[in-house]
Amino acid sequence: MSNQKSKIRVAILGYGNIGKAAEEAIKAAPDIELAGIFHHNDCLDCIDADAVLICTPTREVQKFATVLAARGICTVDSFDIHGQIWSLRSALDAVCTANQTVSIISAGWDPGSDSMVRALLMALAPKGLTYTNFGPGRSMGHTVAAKSKPGVKNALSMTIPLGTGIHRRMVYVELEEGADFKAVEAAILADDYFAHDETHVIPVESVDALNNVAHGVNLVRNGVSGETHNQRFEFNMTINNPALTGQVMVSCARAALRLKERGEYGAKTMIELAPIDLLPGTKESLVKALV
Amino acid sequence: MSNQKSKIRVAILGYGNIGKAAEEAIKAAPDIELAGIFHHNDCLDCIDADAVLICTPTREVQKFATVLAARGICTVDSFDIHGQIWSLRSALDAVCTANQTVSIISAGWDPGSDSMVRALLMALAPKGLTYTNFGPGRSMGHTVAAKSKPGVKNALSMTIPLGTGIHRRMVYVELEEGADFKAVEAAILADDYFAHDETHVIPVESVDALNNVAHGVNLVRNGVSGETHNQRFEFNMTINNPALTGQVMVSCARAALRLKERGEYGAKTMIELAPIDLLPGTKESLVKALV
Repeated sequence: MSNQKSKIRVAILGYGNIGKAAEEAIKAAPDIELAGIFHHNDCLDCIDADAVLICTPTREVQKFATVLAARGICTVDSFDIHGQIWSLRSALDAVCTANQTVSIISAGWDPGSDSMVRALLMALAPKGLTYTNFGPGRSMGHTVAAKSKPGVKNALSMTIPLGTGIHRRMVYVELEEGADFKAVEAAILADDYFAHDETHVIPVESVDALNNVAHGVNLVRNGVSGETHNQRFEFNMTINNPALTGQVMVSCARAALRLKERGEYGAKTMIELAPIDLLPGTKESLVKALV
Repeated sequence: MSNQKSKIRVAILGYGNIGKAAEEAIKAAPDIELAGIFHHNDCLDCIDADAVLICTPTREVQKFATVLAARGICTVDSFDIHGQIWSLRSALDAVCTANQTVSIISAGWDPGSDSMVRALLMALAPKGLTYTNFGPGRSMGHTVAAKSKPGVKNALSMTIPLGTGIHRRMVYVELEEGADFKAVEAAILADDYFAHDETHVIPVESVDALNNVAHGVNLVRNGVSGETHNQRFEFNMTINNPALTGQVMVSCARAALRLKERGEYGAKTMIELAPIDLLPGTKESLVKALV
């Protein structure tokens, strides 16, 4: 954690919304320099970097991370399929350990920084309920599902938090010429993505006119510390979604290099990271400023 | 992190409000058993435990932690003099490293869990301002200062958050027979503890009738992720103060043992801990439940 050493060299693989935001976060970081931007069909062997941020679609993460980790390069991804995170971690952990490197997986805001908050709140009040309320903001999965219906030219599915982890879906659809709105509405409401939530389908002239990458979270826990009930905690944020994801990935690249330097090889989720390792600066300056 | 192993044996040194709350948190923990309760004048050599929670007044922490760490026992304290934390960490780090053990210092809610939130928010939005607003709740330091004035039989100083880290002091005083309220008020307002804040002194018949260990925090950051401004984060809690402090110390005793098991010896503040190490259970179950 010395200030004397040269900058960490971090490359970006995949240059969509997240890749562009990660580039901005790298340029703003005092201790990191950009080691190149690569597209998903570029030759991975050409990447020369201390760490690579994998900003491709989530389903391609494991393939790329495996190849890079096998070369001993640290990787960071924001893999976001909650049910498959442990399996990704297990697969990458073996590759990282064998090649003395570190992969930080699911490094976004949820999964990611929200996960760290959920773990901390569980430690502060071990018994009780945590509710993670998302939005208002765009759901990628629901948007894709709505777009896939016949007669839909473009769509946007907004997630609206109703509390206690229950969400309303507001689906804005731009119809193709001559499409029947009632048929589109029925197809969306019948889709498994929407069938379990309160869903409203609204025809609009232009989905592009609604475009906004704002998102948010309201994460609430009411729990018990020792024998004391009604300990109440709340974490809120309203943020630009790709900007936060890109920033989290860059902060995690720093942590990956620190872990590697200490010989703590393997794949880790963010709840396995100490917050201090996400930050530039010396241990002394960070403890004095933040503790 | 196996479930098969025997319970962690944790002792308590000092049996005031925090010691009693820590006892409750130990009894509620599935993986920890109480290894005894000791008073500050008991023989420290008689303590047989994996970890000791030092629940004595803050100024006695270093003395006790040093003796226990020299015996290779893990310690946890909630040392709360912000300006002296790095110095305590440095002194204990040397003792812990030499004796292959771990001390977790300043493990309360501020310093402590709030510090972890402050560090995380800095990683999410590196540029910007964080404000920690305390209360409403009792300030120990201000209460002691008010009690020390001639004519004061008992006092209570409440911290009221006004936002942007500015606080009002509401000082409730129970006067001694024949004391002059105006003189008491003037003495309190002139004290350095109160001279810089908006302070109101209020005479009451019984300070005991106002007794309440409730406290709270509103921690706010508005910052920049990459090049994107106006990223807004907020952490709120309303809690029973000793119950939360005792719980945090118990969760940190678990983390201390995990670090010791991995050979990561030394003194650490909470921003140097991964949230997963605060929790009972296997890595797999915690990642699946929380990430």
